[in-house]
Amino acid sequence: QTCIIESLINEKVQAAVDSKVSSILTKAQLTCTSTSAPGADAFCPSGYLATGCACGMACGSWDIRADTACHCQCARIDWTAARCCKVAIVG
Amino acid sequence: QTCIIESLINEKVQAAVDSKVSSILTKAQLTCTSTSAPGADAFCPSGYLATGCACGMACGSWDIRADTACHCQCARIDWTAARCCKVAIVG
Amino acid sequence: QTCIIESLINEKVQAAVDSKVSSILTKAQLTCTSTSAPGADAFCPSGYLATGCACGMACGSWDIRADTACHCQCARIDWTAARCCKVAIVG
Repeated sequence: QTCIIESLINEKVQAAVDSKVSSILTKAQLTCTSTSAPGADAFCPSGYLATGCACGMACGSWDIRADTACHCQCARIDWTAARCCKVAIVG
Repeated sequence: QTCIIESLINEKVQAAVDSKVSSILTKAQLTCTSTSAPGADAFCPSGYLATGCACGMACGSWDIRADTACHCQCARIDWTAARCCKVAIVG
Repeated sequence: QTCIIESLINEKVQAAVDSKVSSILTKAQLTCTSTSAPGADAFCPSGYLATGCACGMACGSWDIRADTACHCQCARIDWTAARCCKVAIVG
């Protein structure tokens, strides 16, 4: 059996939690940045993961190392860029 | 000193909040879409960020502008595509 | 009119929910992985979405199919790689 006071508490709690759900969720947003460096390797800032890479000399052959760095595979590549993203708390 | 009623409220609140955590989190999911356009520039839909780009003519040299647009750098590029993602509330 | 007990409950609930917000949000993080395969197609693991693609033979022309697979467009492509991400609950 549940006392009246317990029911009241339960009800208030559920309503408050539900009303927070959407406002909480909208604060989790994707945030991205780009880095580039001369040569065959570019590194993401701390906390970011690489989602894609670009290379100089029109090269589209690359791989991502340790989740956070871009490596362009073409010989004598002149520059490498990393696209880097994370889920950030906004607002 | 904490009254009995306060303890009861605290306990109920913590339990309700904890039980909501996992259900809330699973609603925040990555959602992606692709866009493409003739020429050297492709734009993400509003609310999305570019995570990578593709170019015609086998070109792998590109950069992302204003977080949301792909620009292919090879001369006389015929098409550009943007891969675009965001964190969306699902369900 | 709100009773004293209702006010107390409301206050406790709001405080508890607010204190959980930041700890909940920091658990939603971006998680990524890479896959590669011989030929023109590479597929993301279940639950992941493709955020970018890489191709052999320096090719930078690709498209993403069904949100989860990379297809390299250059003729007789030797390998294709997919960069795959999702929002995961960490900790």
